[in-house]
Amino acid sequence: MSTGTNGQERLYLFDTTLRDGAQTLGVDFSTEDKRLIAERLDTLGIDYIEGGYPGANPTDTAFFENPPELSNARLVAFGMTKRAGRSVSNDPGFAALLQSSAPAICLVAKSWDYHVELALGISNEENLQAIAESTEAIIADDREALVDCEHFFDGYKANREYALACAKAAHDAGASWIVLCDTNGGTLPHEVEEIVRDVAHELPSARLGIHTHNDTENGVANTFAGVEGGARQVQGTLNGLGERCGNANLTSIIPTLTLKEPYRSRFVTGVTSERLKTLTHVSRYLDEALNQAPNRSAPYVGTSAFAHKGGIHVSAVQKDPRTYEHVSPEAIGNARKLLVSDQAGRSNILAELERLGIPVAPDDPRVRSLLEEVKRRESLGYSYEGADASFELMARRHLSNVPSYFDVERFRVMVERRHNARGELVTVSEATVKVRINGDAVLSVGEGNGPVHALDCALRKDLGVYQQYTEELELVDYKVRILTGGTDAVTRVLIETLDTKTRDRWFTVGVSPNIVDASFEALIDSITYKLMRENVVAH
Amino acid sequence: MSTGTNGQERLYLFDTTLRDGAQTLGVDFSTEDKRLIAERLDTLGIDYIEGGYPGANPTDTAFFENPPELSNARLVAFGMTKRAGRSVSNDPGFAALLQSSAPAICLVAKSWDYHVELALGISNEENLQAIAESTEAIIADDREALVDCEHFFDGYKANREYALACAKAAHDAGASWIVLCDTNGGTLPHEVEEIVRDVAHELPSARLGIHTHNDTENGVANTFAGVEGGARQVQGTLNGLGERCGNANLTSIIPTLTLKEPYRSRFVTGVTSERLKTLTHVSRYLDEALNQAPNRSAPYVGTSAFAHKGGIHVSAVQKDPRTYEHVSPEAIGNARKLLVSDQAGRSNILAELERLGIPVAPDDPRVRSLLEEVKRRESLGYSYEGADASFELMARRHLSNVPSYFDVERFRVMVERRHNARGELVTVSEATVKVRINGDAVLSVGEGNGPVHALDCALRKDLGVYQQYTEELELVDYKVRILTGGTDAVTRVLIETLDTKTRDRWFTVGVSPNIVDASFEALIDSITYKLMRENVVAH
Repeated sequence: MSTGTNGQERLYLFDTTLRDGAQTLGVDFSTEDKRLIAERLDTLGIDYIEGGYPGANPTDTAFFENPPELSNARLVAFGMTKRAGRSVSNDPGFAALLQSSAPAICLVAKSWDYHVELALGISNEENLQAIAESTEAIIADDREALVDCEHFFDGYKANREYALACAKAAHDAGASWIVLCDTNGGTLPHEVEEIVRDVAHELPSARLGIHTHNDTENGVANTFAGVEGGARQVQGTLNGLGERCGNANLTSIIPTLTLKEPYRSRFVTGVTSERLKTLTHVSRYLDEALNQAPNRSAPYVGTSAFAHKGGIHVSAVQKDPRTYEHVSPEAIGNARKLLVSDQAGRSNILAELERLGIPVAPDDPRVRSLLEEVKRRESLGYSYEGADASFELMARRHLSNVPSYFDVERFRVMVERRHNARGELVTVSEATVKVRINGDAVLSVGEGNGPVHALDCALRKDLGVYQQYTEELELVDYKVRILTGGTDAVTRVLIETLDTKTRDRWFTVGVSPNIVDASFEALIDSITYKLMRENVVAH
Repeated sequence: MSTGTNGQERLYLFDTTLRDGAQTLGVDFSTEDKRLIAERLDTLGIDYIEGGYPGANPTDTAFFENPPELSNARLVAFGMTKRAGRSVSNDPGFAALLQSSAPAICLVAKSWDYHVELALGISNEENLQAIAESTEAIIADDREALVDCEHFFDGYKANREYALACAKAAHDAGASWIVLCDTNGGTLPHEVEEIVRDVAHELPSARLGIHTHNDTENGVANTFAGVEGGARQVQGTLNGLGERCGNANLTSIIPTLTLKEPYRSRFVTGVTSERLKTLTHVSRYLDEALNQAPNRSAPYVGTSAFAHKGGIHVSAVQKDPRTYEHVSPEAIGNARKLLVSDQAGRSNILAELERLGIPVAPDDPRVRSLLEEVKRRESLGYSYEGADASFELMARRHLSNVPSYFDVERFRVMVERRHNARGELVTVSEATVKVRINGDAVLSVGEGNGPVHALDCALRKDLGVYQQYTEELELVDYKVRILTGGTDAVTRVLIETLDTKTRDRWFTVGVSPNIVDASFEALIDSITYKLMRENVVAH
């Protein structure tokens, strides 16, 4: 591992997204998810990647049986210290750890005497022995042994001597890192700093790590407090994934360490400024793997992190980004966004049009009327912040013109659940569409898993001269939001389309009380957008 | 306002959800939203409620024309200092402020010389005059004047003397509070504490406030750092609403101040421990008003904040909550949750069954098989974490029995878009359902604004003997999630039903490749759940 240049100290990054993060409500990684996420963490420059708990569940066991190839990072397996009163070889849980392929093993060791009694039901002395023997067994097996002191801060407050004794037992047994964990997440920054400093003073030769949670929304601050106190390994997860309120968020910690003083000058990590540019991608990739919408307001990487809505802000940012941005969005692979929204001023609209390459004079009165149109449609439930393609279509229709390629005269979608000939209960979805292209009527029918899919199939089945283009389109995601709730709800549909030729993706929006209508509108926008960007001439 | 008992210092809470929070992407409060949110903030015990920017937009102007009645809190209007070179009376923006009904006005004053030149294009001296004259004009009008020093921390780093001069100008002019704002959100806790302490030292007689943002995920930590430095007013928003990455999150700050040391002993706020119990409700209410899903992992108030997933945690928490909880969920009106999920152990299931009042012996083998069933269904895409009613039905079917009230033989849903007799383009949704109740077949047809609504209407149109019960049900929310994306997507539908008789709400889930099928499954669960809890006997 590279060491600090020009007097900087090396700070180590330990990611536990695949282990502690897997405890998150609704998170369920497949073995393949884990492999792909580990590879991205490796590319980012993480030092340790905790992959899971071999033996605890089939996914984790399979992951370690066939581990990813890592170029920078070291793969870590997580497990418990051996049970008291058993030899390491005679503890199946511990054996599973040693059977895993991991070059490093992170042991969780209880360091709060109350838990030793309540959860383990053994004596404090037996627990110290278990910590020492388990650590030694890992080292004897030629692996790196890290020890997580569970509940360290609560344990320290309840019984300082014993908490320190646990850390010392691990250190004396040869653990490479003693990681102090705020398992319940209730410790506040000033306490974390004080306690870590005391441990560093008591165990001067030990290398300390800090592992915090976000239960008081201080997960990140507690991590930096730990570093202030002397910790040189920070543990956390991507996007702050983790049980309850999540773990310390590495996605926020890493850019602060890399870009901001005093950390930038004091420390060096495996994340170079070049690698930092992949952070936004890695963060969004994780959300994709979890099939969840990224947190727009996430620090550094959120789509809103550098979004400017208020008119004053927008004009100032355009004069000089420093006026409203503490770091440059490009540094973490994110981008500035000047919002087209209900609060948008002329400057936002103009900036968007420029980004889209739509030429217009700043004083053109149509800019004002376009703004009014955006506001009118947003009041109906449209949202263009997530639907660039629909915004571009509307803007071009308003400012230049978009050919009218085809006209859908009518459609009918039918979903039927009935018993089929074999007496099985089946559900079929069928759609018929009547399209008029250059005067000729085309009637198409399509089947699908559901009404929208059937409509999409029917619509793209025969678009005559445009067929070659629509065949390149793939409906990759479909989001539905009910805007007012209840039976009078208005439904907003966002459709993500993939152009299989160019690999471009775009988003279109549709709004209607009827989900099928809303979907239809978004589908039509998507097809029209494709034809427009291919400069197809209307027939 | 009450002052500290037993030597505690009074700390003031200033909420800007309705002003700075209104800058959030996708947030658009109605005047009525603002009134209702203000009332809840008042009940919670907030000292100052910033309602908006009168004159800047119709909503805010209307809000101040007809302000809410507040019993604890003082309503604050936000605005800018008067323009340089104009008298206060001759500045329309400033005049709008004085026309508002607000007893207190918070002025934003530039305190970074760079912004004074770039954004205002006036001299530093003119800016100081504008601050002083504007503050004096508000006081002359018998109102409280608070001054927000915009970009104070960046301004201080660039030109300490001038930033201090701006604060001093406001203080000398009689401002009740000088609020130091980290407008760009890039300042880190140790800097905040240092700078606030310096200002407190330079202006010993001034009362200081701290206003931070979350761009480094330190919004909360920066607020406490400001208090450490001497600030006695904290500004923030509910749920951390706000532009970019949001403002300091009062929903996290308040419980820490009220429940945790050293703050609990050092300070007293308007939020009594009794009032604190409403915090979770207030937080969720705001999300309802914004029609957005609450952040499950939100500190203190999130549905996951006290959720325990791992089997070990669960059994320990049941022995003694302190083992894995830093505060009691009841203190903020939240509740413990032992998750039924893929990682759930027997103890979670048993705890859930106990909560639902389903009697079962801990060693009953059916508990294990129910757990297997949960896991199997979750692997298909079901999620019971958000669908208690469907879980209860499944559990009761498994452990006792649920009557089979009726049987849907088939249904057909049709959505058609066509030109009507008057040549207008219309979309109609119609559903027919064939239900069998106690041997008799009932055929019903219903219309709705969409396929699911039509199906719901047809289904509940004639359920014979059960009719009286189903008429009490109302479909209040409908959520759709695509689980794998693309055309092979599996659709998960969550339906929220309101019982108009008891006002109870419950959630049911359905999963299918076909959105109508999935919705149908959730609708049937909801009706069956109603009949079961009414102890209806199957005919």
